[in-house]
Amino acid sequence: MTTKALYLLKQKLKETAAQRDQLGGTAFHERQLIRDSGLLRLSLPREFSGDAQKWPVIFHTVREIASVDSSLAHILGFQYLILATINLFGTPAQSAYFFAETGQDNLFWGNALNPLDTRTSVTRVDGHLLINGHKSFCSGARDSDRLLISALNEEGRLLVAAIPSSRKGISIHDDWDNIGQRQTDSGSVEFNQVVLFEDEILSSPGPLGSTFASLRPLIAQLSFCNIYLGIALGALKEAVVFTKTQGRPWFNSGVQEIAKDPYILRRYGELSAEISAAIALTDNAALNLQAAWEQGDNLTPEERGQCALDIAAAKVITTKTGLQVSSQIFDVMGARATTASLRLDRYWRNVRVHTLHDPVDYKLRDLGDWVLNQHLPTPTFYS
Amino acid sequence: MTTKALYLLKQKLKETAAQRDQLGGTAFHERQLIRDSGLLRLSLPREFSGDAQKWPVIFHTVREIASVDSSLAHILGFQYLILATINLFGTPAQSAYFFAETGQDNLFWGNALNPLDTRTSVTRVDGHLLINGHKSFCSGARDSDRLLISALNEEGRLLVAAIPSSRKGISIHDDWDNIGQRQTDSGSVEFNQVVLFEDEILSSPGPLGSTFASLRPLIAQLSFCNIYLGIALGALKEAVVFTKTQGRPWFNSGVQEIAKDPYILRRYGELSAEISAAIALTDNAALNLQAAWEQGDNLTPEERGQCALDIAAAKVITTKTGLQVSSQIFDVMGARATTASLRLDRYWRNVRVHTLHDPVDYKLRDLGDWVLNQHLPTPTFYS
Amino acid sequence: MTTKALYLLKQKLKETAAQRDQLGGTAFHERQLIRDSGLLRLSLPREFSGDAQKWPVIFHTVREIASVDSSLAHILGFQYLILATINLFGTPAQSAYFFAETGQDNLFWGNALNPLDTRTSVTRVDGHLLINGHKSFCSGARDSDRLLISALNEEGRLLVAAIPSSRKGISIHDDWDNIGQRQTDSGSVEFNQVVLFEDEILSSPGPLGSTFASLRPLIAQLSFCNIYLGIALGALKEAVVFTKTQGRPWFNSGVQEIAKDPYILRRYGELSAEISAAIALTDNAALNLQAAWEQGDNLTPEERGQCALDIAAAKVITTKTGLQVSSQIFDVMGARATTASLRLDRYWRNVRVHTLHDPVDYKLRDLGDWVLNQHLPTPTFYS
Amino acid sequence: MTTKALYLLKQKLKETAAQRDQLGGTAFHERQLIRDSGLLRLSLPREFSGDAQKWPVIFHTVREIASVDSSLAHILGFQYLILATINLFGTPAQSAYFFAETGQDNLFWGNALNPLDTRTSVTRVDGHLLINGHKSFCSGARDSDRLLISALNEEGRLLVAAIPSSRKGISIHDDWDNIGQRQTDSGSVEFNQVVLFEDEILSSPGPLGSTFASLRPLIAQLSFCNIYLGIALGALKEAVVFTKTQGRPWFNSGVQEIAKDPYILRRYGELSAEISAAIALTDNAALNLQAAWEQGDNLTPEERGQCALDIAAAKVITTKTGLQVSSQIFDVMGARATTASLRLDRYWRNVRVHTLHDPVDYKLRDLGDWVLNQHLPTPTFYS
Repeated sequence: MTTKALYLLKQKLKETAAQRDQLGGTAFHERQLIRDSGLLRLSLPREFSGDAQKWPVIFHTVREIASVDSSLAHILGFQYLILATINLFGTPAQSAYFFAETGQDNLFWGNALNPLDTRTSVTRVDGHLLINGHKSFCSGARDSDRLLISALNEEGRLLVAAIPSSRKGISIHDDWDNIGQRQTDSGSVEFNQVVLFEDEILSSPGPLGSTFASLRPLIAQLSFCNIYLGIALGALKEAVVFTKTQGRPWFNSGVQEIAKDPYILRRYGELSAEISAAIALTDNAALNLQAAWEQGDNLTPEERGQCALDIAAAKVITTKTGLQVSSQIFDVMGARATTASLRLDRYWRNVRVHTLHDPVDYKLRDLGDWVLNQHLPTPTFYS
Repeated sequence: MTTKALYLLKQKLKETAAQRDQLGGTAFHERQLIRDSGLLRLSLPREFSGDAQKWPVIFHTVREIASVDSSLAHILGFQYLILATINLFGTPAQSAYFFAETGQDNLFWGNALNPLDTRTSVTRVDGHLLINGHKSFCSGARDSDRLLISALNEEGRLLVAAIPSSRKGISIHDDWDNIGQRQTDSGSVEFNQVVLFEDEILSSPGPLGSTFASLRPLIAQLSFCNIYLGIALGALKEAVVFTKTQGRPWFNSGVQEIAKDPYILRRYGELSAEISAAIALTDNAALNLQAAWEQGDNLTPEERGQCALDIAAAKVITTKTGLQVSSQIFDVMGARATTASLRLDRYWRNVRVHTLHDPVDYKLRDLGDWVLNQHLPTPTFYS
Repeated sequence: MTTKALYLLKQKLKETAAQRDQLGGTAFHERQLIRDSGLLRLSLPREFSGDAQKWPVIFHTVREIASVDSSLAHILGFQYLILATINLFGTPAQSAYFFAETGQDNLFWGNALNPLDTRTSVTRVDGHLLINGHKSFCSGARDSDRLLISALNEEGRLLVAAIPSSRKGISIHDDWDNIGQRQTDSGSVEFNQVVLFEDEILSSPGPLGSTFASLRPLIAQLSFCNIYLGIALGALKEAVVFTKTQGRPWFNSGVQEIAKDPYILRRYGELSAEISAAIALTDNAALNLQAAWEQGDNLTPEERGQCALDIAAAKVITTKTGLQVSSQIFDVMGARATTASLRLDRYWRNVRVHTLHDPVDYKLRDLGDWVLNQHLPTPTFYS
Repeated sequence: MTTKALYLLKQKLKETAAQRDQLGGTAFHERQLIRDSGLLRLSLPREFSGDAQKWPVIFHTVREIASVDSSLAHILGFQYLILATINLFGTPAQSAYFFAETGQDNLFWGNALNPLDTRTSVTRVDGHLLINGHKSFCSGARDSDRLLISALNEEGRLLVAAIPSSRKGISIHDDWDNIGQRQTDSGSVEFNQVVLFEDEILSSPGPLGSTFASLRPLIAQLSFCNIYLGIALGALKEAVVFTKTQGRPWFNSGVQEIAKDPYILRRYGELSAEISAAIALTDNAALNLQAAWEQGDNLTPEERGQCALDIAAAKVITTKTGLQVSSQIFDVMGARATTASLRLDRYWRNVRVHTLHDPVDYKLRDLGDWVLNQHLPTPTFYS
């Protein structure tokens, strides 16, 4: 994946982003553009035809895509998260297998792992494992080649497994219609007597089964931070273009050009400073995550905990920044920027929807519990 | 207009508000509900079949309507503003004439007064006055019975006049399609050789032609403040219902019900305290405006200036509060409140669009110029 | 108390406020000025030589004094609170007795009621009641004529009583030395075998013994709000004078006078708008408190609860405003305003210290519990 | 300078910091501790007995010292700034000379360079250059060995020169008495017929005489950012200790220990997240400054400009963070933390005074002018 290829992909996504925000649904064409770009293999090791990029590059790519289309950035972020999950929860053989087919067939992974939704179960019937039930918030499941799923087994333990999206009994519904992140396909998936093979279950060490495995939620969270940053950056960029090409000075501002209005300049300065701080913090967290990742099974709970704290701080700050920038861009563009044809509200809608994934107040509590009590965050699927 | 009638109107508007936000366009049916409610006559003197209500009641009514439908509240606010404008810019005879027909025929007024848009002119041709040109941001013009228009005469002076919406040569376009305030019909009006009669021109004292006449922009601004407050109140109310009926406690919050989550409670407290302050300030400004209004031609520039400052402060605070509340309600409702079917983002979209009417930074400058330099705001169409 | 007398008192207090902030300790001379001003009788009924002023005027007076000296305003606020407490917790005969001597002898009351400090007890020895123990945070106790005290009796019940400050066994220590509110004398009082007479005990209905009696904490809290407002107003006033007389435009601001700097104007505007909202909210709460007060024993828990919510909101907003204004005045004055001789940091220090009286987070929780759950605040000594 | 030595120096400074904040004046003893620590040579090249540390380490050291004593950190920051100024404004020979004597004699430099104060002049009398006039805000001038001074020559051009502090005619007044940064000795210096030698003048390229030379104000600004960060970190650290050792849960918080109060935890989390973002941004800026520094005369205006923008953003964010943290620590400590003996208000007073050095609004304008107009900041003594 060259810088130029990423640039061209961004251009193409940007051209239709406003229109597709209106349409919602599955972005089949754009998903194909992503397939064609090679980005699906960005994180894969070289032996599996991958680019072997490290986390800072991976997250930066997610952020870049998010600056033009945060729905597809979310889906792409899940591609990397799911591949990492296979690494973290499964055996080396499983990684080798799934990475090989992903690299070879350029597979797109979708998500059906959602630990808070406990309506899916795995039961053993006549020696076969069968999956039944529903899952909500299954981002990127439609038009996917493989799914990462979660379900409770007969002992009530959480299983995570990787299966083909086309397996018999799986129905991926086109029922995501929300106010933002409209092309993430985060709808529901239904499982009806779906066969599950033992070697598809990632159980060694399994979900959060080791300190290393507990990096999984941190990767998810940091991917989200980069999406919020991308949204903020994209919004600011659109605002600059609009102000410069269509903005007008206020009638009694005393300046001839809006670009010299002291209040417009100050507001741009504020947004820019906030974004800069959020970027620095988030990039730092990516470096720390990479270092933790490279520790593998040597990763200590303390190292993992510090990494979690860095990412929690990034979550807090990027959430705040994303919401602030996407709302305040209108103050520097003015009323005419609200025409529906531009759909410039989508930046706010996107970041508003996504930042509700898990409550930021509990990230603040985690941070406070460290500062005050030196308690590291307990690994869960959200921290 | 009884409290109960207002309550019933609100209920009806609320039922379809989300759906109509999606549709945009002209709310013919709901405009008729307003006509039928008697609200169009709320501010008219009793001799013209009016309710003779004072500004505090009028603005409170606008706010109440805004809590369920801020588009129609905006149009209704313009009804009162336009009737006041006739009073402020015209002769007693003109008031008597226009008020009488408004009271008798239950007329709905639309706006085509926009001083920053100078593309409309009045010229004298063969002894007749003819209006030609375009106007943008003409709120409530569609489906209106009368229009208040502005145009430049041959000397470049601003004329304001009241004419029938159905007059030959007037085209009211259905071209308002914005991200918020979607049923305000704030589109464009085209004038093509439209005849204007002398006695339709409000020229005594004319636009901002006296201290009393310069109350006009203050009435407009205070109407806006009440719309922002209404949006905040409506948003908070929806949030409470959603949290209580559909909210779930966060999995590691340690509480069994979301209604006991300390962070949820604190956030509701913050939103509520901000709204309370904004209400107190705005209601105060309405009392002061009423007092200024009652001064009539005895109103001094100092009294008018103090009133302008009160309303500028209310504008600043209600803008901030409206934006904050409509965005943060999601933090107390959670991700499921983002389903498109509820369209709960409309509160933010509505207040975001409307608060761009004129830049709040220049209201802050006005306030500062008073505090520091004891300069009262210069009357313009925006302050 | 005429407006002019209040003005003159303020002038005198202002002249030495900075110097006395440095000294700390007891403001004997200024307490005497307050005695001489007649302000100690402001709230007393006319039959006791009082001015019979209502709560809005009383709180406004506290605010005015706080704008020049928030320590003395605090002590004066306690005078009114203590007199009200006698009314609320005691019998009509007790009110008559204590009000009469207060009116006649111009008595200054000090506070030794502190329910969270349980180190003081009342025991019966040989038929006499004896007070023993310590109290902290006893505002205005030094140089006082009478004290309102709290203590636990042998059953662990809270007693409140009114006694002469000079009674044998009472030691009022000069041990208040804090970073703000330095002349509130909020030090400790020691009781050593102090005799207490039955008719000094306010036990009918006693502490928070009725809905009406539970107005006591609300009066205290609203007095505090007015102190924070006074601090904000005083700080802003000093800033204006400083900017105008000593401020200089920034070298590359492009303006010749600091009074025209767009950013200085905007900042003044922001501070002013926040203060205006806080004033409106607080004045509203005072009207509601007066209405509740006039209900007397007819006051319902619902009415009391609404009043508590109004005051909680005022507490939240005035706390925020006081802290913001007292810190940000420096941004409009510049570095030279930090000279120690002016001691302009005292506004922040004063409001910072006082706003810690009870945590604002729990006021937010109370407000949220109302909005979300329709639970009115439970009456305690703090809400 | 080892980590341990820095730790020990911090411990010693911390022990007396509160007391010395009260005293103000010159910290002779502590200045000697700094001399003894070796820190004066931290930035000097190895050939001059220096530690040859790079900017990230230098600024980190300033920050560490600021966490316990921001006055001395300011003076130490000036040591590094002045040595860099000699490098930037003078000839290699001048650097060699002044660095050699600094390294050999462990010299402490004080500041008398203040371009906005134009009361000092250099005139040529009988072939000698003589300095006359006054300078204000001369940080660290007292007890210094050398001074960096600025003055206007007969053509009105700014001269910068390095002279011994003990030279005849120099009077360094003990007249700094401000509300914060009380031991920075930022008082006035008087020059009375002070001889100036040609080779003491740094005129090649002279003040901001080249792109490289214009790094000087950036070094100053970044030093300030690190002081604000140090103050925030020091304040937070004190707060944690206080909360844990002396904090008490609020009576109706429902928790037994303050360390479990959800609101206390959330507040600590907020302060911590803000600090983390500010650190990341500031550390990033230091890396960029180091890279710019290493460019030397190859530094392009674009590179310099980007560096200026990074530092402006850091200034904005650290200012906000420093003020916020130093004020809000009290909310997590409670009223008893306001005892004067602890002088915990000094964190706020210190950061409040220092952040007025130059107005942050103009940094925001600079940032906005870049984002919107792609104008890099014009090099001045402040940007």
